[in-house]
Amino acid sequence: MSTAIGTPNIALVKYWGKRDEELNLPTNSSISMTLDEKLTTKTSVLFTEEIDQDRLYINREEQDINGADIPEKSMFIKRALEYMRKKSGIKGHALIVSENNFPTSSGIASSASGGATLVFALSDALGLKMTRREMSIIARQISGSACRSVYGGIVEWKKGKKPDGSDSFARQVIKPSYWGDLRDVITIVDTSKKKISSSVGHHTTIATSTLYKNRPKHADAEVKIIKDAIKRKDFQAMAEIIMRDSNDMHATMLDTWPPIMYLNDNSRDIIYAIHELNEKKGRYVAAYTFDAGANAHIITTEDFINDVLDVLKGINSVKSTIQSGVGNGPKILKNESLIDLSKLSPI
Amino acid sequence: MSTAIGTPNIALVKYWGKRDEELNLPTNSSISMTLDEKLTTKTSVLFTEEIDQDRLYINREEQDINGADIPEKSMFIKRALEYMRKKSGIKGHALIVSENNFPTSSGIASSASGGATLVFALSDALGLKMTRREMSIIARQISGSACRSVYGGIVEWKKGKKPDGSDSFARQVIKPSYWGDLRDVITIVDTSKKKISSSVGHHTTIATSTLYKNRPKHADAEVKIIKDAIKRKDFQAMAEIIMRDSNDMHATMLDTWPPIMYLNDNSRDIIYAIHELNEKKGRYVAAYTFDAGANAHIITTEDFINDVLDVLKGINSVKSTIQSGVGNGPKILKNESLIDLSKLSPI
Repeated sequence: MSTAIGTPNIALVKYWGKRDEELNLPTNSSISMTLDEKLTTKTSVLFTEEIDQDRLYINREEQDINGADIPEKSMFIKRALEYMRKKSGIKGHALIVSENNFPTSSGIASSASGGATLVFALSDALGLKMTRREMSIIARQISGSACRSVYGGIVEWKKGKKPDGSDSFARQVIKPSYWGDLRDVITIVDTSKKKISSSVGHHTTIATSTLYKNRPKHADAEVKIIKDAIKRKDFQAMAEIIMRDSNDMHATMLDTWPPIMYLNDNSRDIIYAIHELNEKKGRYVAAYTFDAGANAHIITTEDFINDVLDVLKGINSVKSTIQSGVGNGPKILKNESLIDLSKLSPI
Repeated sequence: MSTAIGTPNIALVKYWGKRDEELNLPTNSSISMTLDEKLTTKTSVLFTEEIDQDRLYINREEQDINGADIPEKSMFIKRALEYMRKKSGIKGHALIVSENNFPTSSGIASSASGGATLVFALSDALGLKMTRREMSIIARQISGSACRSVYGGIVEWKKGKKPDGSDSFARQVIKPSYWGDLRDVITIVDTSKKKISSSVGHHTTIATSTLYKNRPKHADAEVKIIKDAIKRKDFQAMAEIIMRDSNDMHATMLDTWPPIMYLNDNSRDIIYAIHELNEKKGRYVAAYTFDAGANAHIITTEDFINDVLDVLKGINSVKSTIQSGVGNGPKILKNESLIDLSKLSPI
């Protein structure tokens, strides 16, 4: 029995397109900032013989993880569970209860924090004593970007080359404290479910977009440049890459057939407003980036939080904002559980 | 003295990106449908010694076409005027009065109909007896896509190879009557001025977009395929190319730095609605395409006009529609003039 807490990450150079769809192996390396505990996933895991089969609850809704015809995401979770359970030698069914404090499938990557937190809880519950790297590889197989949420700070996911994915994992570029005044201002504009799931998009973009061909090599080059920029805390160099990479990814989505369009009028307003703010300041003080959803992430530093908030106040459709710093990554919660142990006994 | 009438064209494979900015030489060939006389430009030209300098009025507003620091578009008009006046041997200043019956700079290409119609009127007023090809080359130098509006029917603009542009002109692919039931349903959603003029966009996309590199070759290949599809009236093959090429162009715009975004929520609604209509019908019955503006052009055939109109009725922001067939191209109006000859005498 174990409970873990983890957080999403926001990609600064995006992961879009897989070279292996089964193993979530990407066509390019990516970089992200792990968010702090304003947005969290908590996951409790119990292995017990008192339930009839493995059971998974996300936000209090049971997910089907048994049987042949289950969704891909459930299959990937099941695969990770089987692998880790086998490795530990422990028998019994798993009861997994996971809860996010933010809306699922709204462009805030619940699958990243979900995947990383689950692997943390499983590893602890099964007494596996895995390294972060091992956990990152397993988390990647649940949901690609989850491999980055296994670490705090700013994190690189090396795409790797091997067909089995054993060299495709994340590692920390800088510790959370290294650039402590870095911020992500998240605008909450649309909590409705996405029309197109990311995994379908990953597939169809590679299969159909002619423009996409130029992306992987270019993104890899950007990862190298932004890593150096981050290490010397060069916000100017970092900001332009963040914004351009977001635009680049959404451009390949629009070029996908049928087209994938996550950016809306609100996103456009934010994009133009951030360009205006930077122009007014005569340098980059903020950088927008959008994942597979319409919520904006505005990367900035503590000094310019108020400027960013002022800009966002001028945009009608922004209902609220969340300010996140650089997070520490997942951890085990010793004295907390989402599972009521008065009714079930662990193995 | 002469008056001409001309019409816009809607590109089915787009012109975006110049290999020569002075001469408007494109990086790829393009294909368009010349629209009928629902949307028109009328242009009257008078050469007279009774005015002090060349004068140009567009929609009753005088445009500066003299002096050193005039806008590029005015410079290009002035250049065409000088060239044709010199060729004719006629002296005297030109009074040019041009009027569109549709909003300028709203994504309906007023510069295309304006450029083509002006060249027609100038050629006639100066007694030049130019061929359409010659007029197409001059119209191209006023505004790239204007070279296509010199012809009726469906028109190809061959990009050409020569540095002087003498092999970069339009020609007719099919006559207007060949596919008489082809239609363009234009949605009028935004008559405000564009934020970014097309000519700035042409430049910055080539200069900054990494994804753009794949576009020219791909667009040229599409031109070949769509030409064959048009000749055999194959709406299925044509429709997919039209939609994908529009998405492809707007994707390279989004990948431009700073980004160019003409598509808005309304455009997205229309894109999704047309995809739904086609799915419902089990084949392509309509194809959307967007120029450098948010107005949609829905290419369809007479049989499916009502289906398209029904779909558009469901979209709030569509204020009105214009239905256009395939147009005949520009012509001289013998008994009409925008210039009051009671006050001015021709040479």
